[in-house]
Amino acid sequence: MPKPLNIGMIGYGFMGRAHSNGYRRVSNFFDLEYTPVLKAVCARNKESAQAFANTWGYESVETDWRALLERDDIDAIDVCVPNNLHAEISIAAAEAGKMILCEKPLAMNVAEGETMVAAVEKAGVPNMVWYNYRRVPAVTLAKQLVDEGRLGRIFHYRAQFLQDWTIAEDVPQGGAALWRLDAAAAGSGVTGDLLAHCIDTALWINGSINTVSAMTETFVKERMHNLTGKVEKVGIDDACAFLARFENGSLATFESTRYARGHKALYTFEINGEHGSIAWDLHDLHRLSWFDHRDEGILRGWRSIHVTDGEHPYMDKWWVPGLQIGYEHSFVHQVADFLASLSSGEPAGPTFRDALETQKVCDAVLSSAADGQWVTVG
Amino acid sequence: MPKPLNIGMIGYGFMGRAHSNGYRRVSNFFDLEYTPVLKAVCARNKESAQAFANTWGYESVETDWRALLERDDIDAIDVCVPNNLHAEISIAAAEAGKMILCEKPLAMNVAEGETMVAAVEKAGVPNMVWYNYRRVPAVTLAKQLVDEGRLGRIFHYRAQFLQDWTIAEDVPQGGAALWRLDAAAAGSGVTGDLLAHCIDTALWINGSINTVSAMTETFVKERMHNLTGKVEKVGIDDACAFLARFENGSLATFESTRYARGHKALYTFEINGEHGSIAWDLHDLHRLSWFDHRDEGILRGWRSIHVTDGEHPYMDKWWVPGLQIGYEHSFVHQVADFLASLSSGEPAGPTFRDALETQKVCDAVLSSAADGQWVTVG
Amino acid sequence: MPKPLNIGMIGYGFMGRAHSNGYRRVSNFFDLEYTPVLKAVCARNKESAQAFANTWGYESVETDWRALLERDDIDAIDVCVPNNLHAEISIAAAEAGKMILCEKPLAMNVAEGETMVAAVEKAGVPNMVWYNYRRVPAVTLAKQLVDEGRLGRIFHYRAQFLQDWTIAEDVPQGGAALWRLDAAAAGSGVTGDLLAHCIDTALWINGSINTVSAMTETFVKERMHNLTGKVEKVGIDDACAFLARFENGSLATFESTRYARGHKALYTFEINGEHGSIAWDLHDLHRLSWFDHRDEGILRGWRSIHVTDGEHPYMDKWWVPGLQIGYEHSFVHQVADFLASLSSGEPAGPTFRDALETQKVCDAVLSSAADGQWVTVG
Amino acid sequence: MPKPLNIGMIGYGFMGRAHSNGYRRVSNFFDLEYTPVLKAVCARNKESAQAFANTWGYESVETDWRALLERDDIDAIDVCVPNNLHAEISIAAAEAGKMILCEKPLAMNVAEGETMVAAVEKAGVPNMVWYNYRRVPAVTLAKQLVDEGRLGRIFHYRAQFLQDWTIAEDVPQGGAALWRLDAAAAGSGVTGDLLAHCIDTALWINGSINTVSAMTETFVKERMHNLTGKVEKVGIDDACAFLARFENGSLATFESTRYARGHKALYTFEINGEHGSIAWDLHDLHRLSWFDHRDEGILRGWRSIHVTDGEHPYMDKWWVPGLQIGYEHSFVHQVADFLASLSSGEPAGPTFRDALETQKVCDAVLSSAADGQWVTVG
Repeated sequence: MPKPLNIGMIGYGFMGRAHSNGYRRVSNFFDLEYTPVLKAVCARNKESAQAFANTWGYESVETDWRALLERDDIDAIDVCVPNNLHAEISIAAAEAGKMILCEKPLAMNVAEGETMVAAVEKAGVPNMVWYNYRRVPAVTLAKQLVDEGRLGRIFHYRAQFLQDWTIAEDVPQGGAALWRLDAAAAGSGVTGDLLAHCIDTALWINGSINTVSAMTETFVKERMHNLTGKVEKVGIDDACAFLARFENGSLATFESTRYARGHKALYTFEINGEHGSIAWDLHDLHRLSWFDHRDEGILRGWRSIHVTDGEHPYMDKWWVPGLQIGYEHSFVHQVADFLASLSSGEPAGPTFRDALETQKVCDAVLSSAADGQWVTVG
Repeated sequence: MPKPLNIGMIGYGFMGRAHSNGYRRVSNFFDLEYTPVLKAVCARNKESAQAFANTWGYESVETDWRALLERDDIDAIDVCVPNNLHAEISIAAAEAGKMILCEKPLAMNVAEGETMVAAVEKAGVPNMVWYNYRRVPAVTLAKQLVDEGRLGRIFHYRAQFLQDWTIAEDVPQGGAALWRLDAAAAGSGVTGDLLAHCIDTALWINGSINTVSAMTETFVKERMHNLTGKVEKVGIDDACAFLARFENGSLATFESTRYARGHKALYTFEINGEHGSIAWDLHDLHRLSWFDHRDEGILRGWRSIHVTDGEHPYMDKWWVPGLQIGYEHSFVHQVADFLASLSSGEPAGPTFRDALETQKVCDAVLSSAADGQWVTVG
Repeated sequence: MPKPLNIGMIGYGFMGRAHSNGYRRVSNFFDLEYTPVLKAVCARNKESAQAFANTWGYESVETDWRALLERDDIDAIDVCVPNNLHAEISIAAAEAGKMILCEKPLAMNVAEGETMVAAVEKAGVPNMVWYNYRRVPAVTLAKQLVDEGRLGRIFHYRAQFLQDWTIAEDVPQGGAALWRLDAAAAGSGVTGDLLAHCIDTALWINGSINTVSAMTETFVKERMHNLTGKVEKVGIDDACAFLARFENGSLATFESTRYARGHKALYTFEINGEHGSIAWDLHDLHRLSWFDHRDEGILRGWRSIHVTDGEHPYMDKWWVPGLQIGYEHSFVHQVADFLASLSSGEPAGPTFRDALETQKVCDAVLSSAADGQWVTVG
Repeated sequence: MPKPLNIGMIGYGFMGRAHSNGYRRVSNFFDLEYTPVLKAVCARNKESAQAFANTWGYESVETDWRALLERDDIDAIDVCVPNNLHAEISIAAAEAGKMILCEKPLAMNVAEGETMVAAVEKAGVPNMVWYNYRRVPAVTLAKQLVDEGRLGRIFHYRAQFLQDWTIAEDVPQGGAALWRLDAAAAGSGVTGDLLAHCIDTALWINGSINTVSAMTETFVKERMHNLTGKVEKVGIDDACAFLARFENGSLATFESTRYARGHKALYTFEINGEHGSIAWDLHDLHRLSWFDHRDEGILRGWRSIHVTDGEHPYMDKWWVPGLQIGYEHSFVHQVADFLASLSSGEPAGPTFRDALETQKVCDAVLSSAADGQWVTVG
């Protein structure tokens, strides 16, 4: 029987559910040395915490995250709270010797992120950030194809993350469900929320970004604030686009917005290389588009690969070819890889240090947007 | 806290996993009066049963299904074994007063199915057959659109279920993993395995089928038999296609095969009505295609609906708009609906009696293919 | 400079335009020994004929097709009139020693078709039937792939031709624009109009059909008749579907209707073979879908080939890669191939004899639909 | 019978064919007051000019474009030569009182373009630039939808033009077929060749661009030059991407490259507005994607409009619904609109003055790429 890994979760929102589901399901599908045990969930409101615990099977609840950190029966802390709390909790957890699984983005900014990296590396605790899209099988396959050199020299990278849920001017900002619209809690708007995902994938697959030129826009300038009850200035970016040059010489465009009608969560990327190209999107996450110029001339065409075969990353664990998995499985995979890393000693990425690189690009993007200059990352 | 519904599962193959996953997950996402408890799994081989129990959290194992039926702590029996055992076990379970959730197709033939229906109705036990595709949200939505009369008079129905896994002649027949290729265990080939799904959906959405004209083919005539170790005649149909006329006057074509290269599990259907048309396929099960002739002329076009909004069937239980679910969720929904039916007293379809109608069409199809005549169903 | 081939066209409807465009454009793009010269167009109504001649550049008009056949300055007759006139005109043209390009279907029935074949073969005149879809480059490419054996053994063929323009009950039948709905002029409904295209392609690519089982339906039983001004019984089939077995052992389904909402001219076919599969549809006629099972496992997928490269059939004559052609180009290609056949002496298919085979399948289909039996073709 | 408009064409390359086809076909499909007459084609090499004249039916040839301008029997000059000759010829043609149809981009730069605009406006001659994609029916429909306010406030515009034909390092630069790779003849690379198309459409549909931030790259730094026979530095941009802000407040990204494997001529644009979104691409130019947020919630989805109905722009002139046209038809439409403008007195856009606006954006883009700053257009 597998060994327990006792989890203490802080937060219980949308991501709290996604992580909990990852913990609950992993051992039904992956045969690993460790299995997560849901020891405790922590939230300021006891009733809410208890309801969540009942639904997901957490054994206990806490209302003070510091109390949770003091418990000996907790091995790992899941930091699943708004961005402005990541640093304080993570650093304290590291000091308490806990492993840490932190929601993305790592921090409010690079300076904060650096203190977090220093803390976990000093404590020597396993650490990971929930950039889950790396573990969508089609994305993992894309990484594998690039690493194998199948695209040859890379010329272009482009990514988008398009949503449309804040177009209505009467959507308020702030509070439990809408902290992502509140600059004080989120740090930035789409840059940290959505582009951070695009950047994490890009750095993982295509290497470092050297320079960026960005623009941001806040289309709706004022919104009612849930915490104050008043109409207040909106501090976040509603949309952000930037040009970039990678270390490997390739050019890139990145764009994100919450004002693109018809797109709910359309994260897309495309990579063009000398010999082939890859494209993927989150609305059909179980497919990967692949073009191979080395195919016979009359038969060249974009292939739509249904990433459900046993040979595809992670897919031998699930059903049979042709039967797709969904969004939530990326979290199960991330839990599985984290558990496996405890056995192998090989960290499961992205670590805090990996995620700091994404933070550096985000900061450079916001800085460029602010002053209208090309900015060097890092 | 919800009340327990104690499950005894017989079988532990591919479908055993899918059902177990349904039981394990339902209460994390659906707030119901009952919650499944995995009391026991039963299989002839104790080690295999125990391994499955460990993975999925069954509390105990049995090696004799009759012993399972005798246990007082079991409320519902899940019949998850090859087709030739459905009748015997289901009838005994009914006589033991157990609820029954039986894998599809209901039976080896209509005669057998009728005895099963008689048994469950005599015993008065809740009963259901696992035609899971009804609970893919896009399929449920299709049913809803037809029921609301949005298509008007229906002219055409067409369905396919295409696979390609038995093209190689050295695939053997029979035994644990390949009983679907063994006529003695399966009864028929693609007709009962795949077309039965298409027929269940069709009857549910479009009403009764009156007459059929069918053809079947067995492309590979002999295969090594795993149970005898000898090359033996293949008794199943590798492919089956049929024409049909529905009670409502619409025409239909149905086709299934395991010899369609490039299609792993491509169940598709399309319905054409006076005012609109619907199309769906299992390879992108989270989408529904919809054409509405009442749209403004210059803007008419097939819509690809990403069935992930909170207003879509079942989708308020999962993530947020834009984030897709997968194959396995259809089983979670079926468990949820079964549990809800225990509270409401309204049976969750398809019941054994509903599934008998599908069996009647399957028998008519095989009969028509055998003698080359149009056959009246029932 | 190329030699003239003097054309006399009989008829000036939709197909008259398509053929005329073929004649007018071929020499701008194809470098051939012959070039069509538009000598005369013939129609009963002189004004209409003259207007058509003005638009398309015909040098003269005739109102009596027999007068046209007597002219020495006409090399080839284009029979572009309703189906019930094909035989009489074609036979007279053959007797007058003219080459004949006849609209499809060849005839009202097999018996009539046989007299036409006898006439052209006795006269020894070049003859061709306008089954134009063979010359869509993607379809020609499909034929080439099958001929090269790339699919291996063929298991399945399926074709559809779906339209939706006769759903409204107040569409009348008969007369100039609507003779296709009048059984007296058209012979049959969708079978001769649409399925004939599907059958021509199928026989060309996949060989002979042995047996069929069909059903037809007339959804709207009565329509106002333009020629009588009265509501009359509709004699044509609105929809037709049939099962078939090919000589090569493959199974097929064919379906056509004018009652499929959302489909204007959706001719589709798919072929499944041992090693690969092909799919095509007329709504995106410049693409061919191709699946090759011999591709590396993790990278297998349906390729969407944009059939616009210089290496693709006919495409070196047009623009540059990536720039698509349309529907009308199939007729230009057919003219080009007919002209080339005059130089090479190799007939350009489908000849009248080829088209007679399609007629035999159509007749078998209608016979099967009438008496509910499987019918042997020929 | 229509009145002749006598055309003198200068040049006979790829675009010479496309324009000639436009002139040759327009009167078969459009019923207009004027009809083009192909009076003369002009090229330095007499044999080539004569061969082209034979193929396309030009009545005469010239080898000196100044001689062509002096001919009284020429009404309109088609300037279909490399970019560095547009200004000199156009200005001389204007001075000779000829109408001018000039290939795009208008000029080598804004300064040159301004002299051209001054010349045609002084002469008062009808003038037009061949930005043909405005006349793809789906693009025209997109313009119509935006003009009607169906999208509401526009938030985002994005466009790409992706090709892959210069990836091989042994493609030479310069000379007849490859002048587009020679900075001396082309002025710029993808910016003037491809992005100019994207910009023309964008300005037409979405109004003025205020500011841009751009980057360009030349991936292959040296290529053999066909005119000198030596390996020489490549002066053009292989790729260009830029951020932009429109006058209406919307944000934009534009990108073009000849290094995107798998894309031959993939011009795409997408527009996101308050109420709806539009997307189009050149590889399936007969379709328009449309999302309408005002559709009923459960049925919202991107519609794929098959732009082939009689109600769609230009499509009543061609075939019947469901039958697509292709690339070349955009030129036929542009000729038709130019001819119609002669009757109505309403200029057919883009005029030289319209095209100068596109030139201003191109110059701003190249300037921004050169010095790494945001640049104000105009």
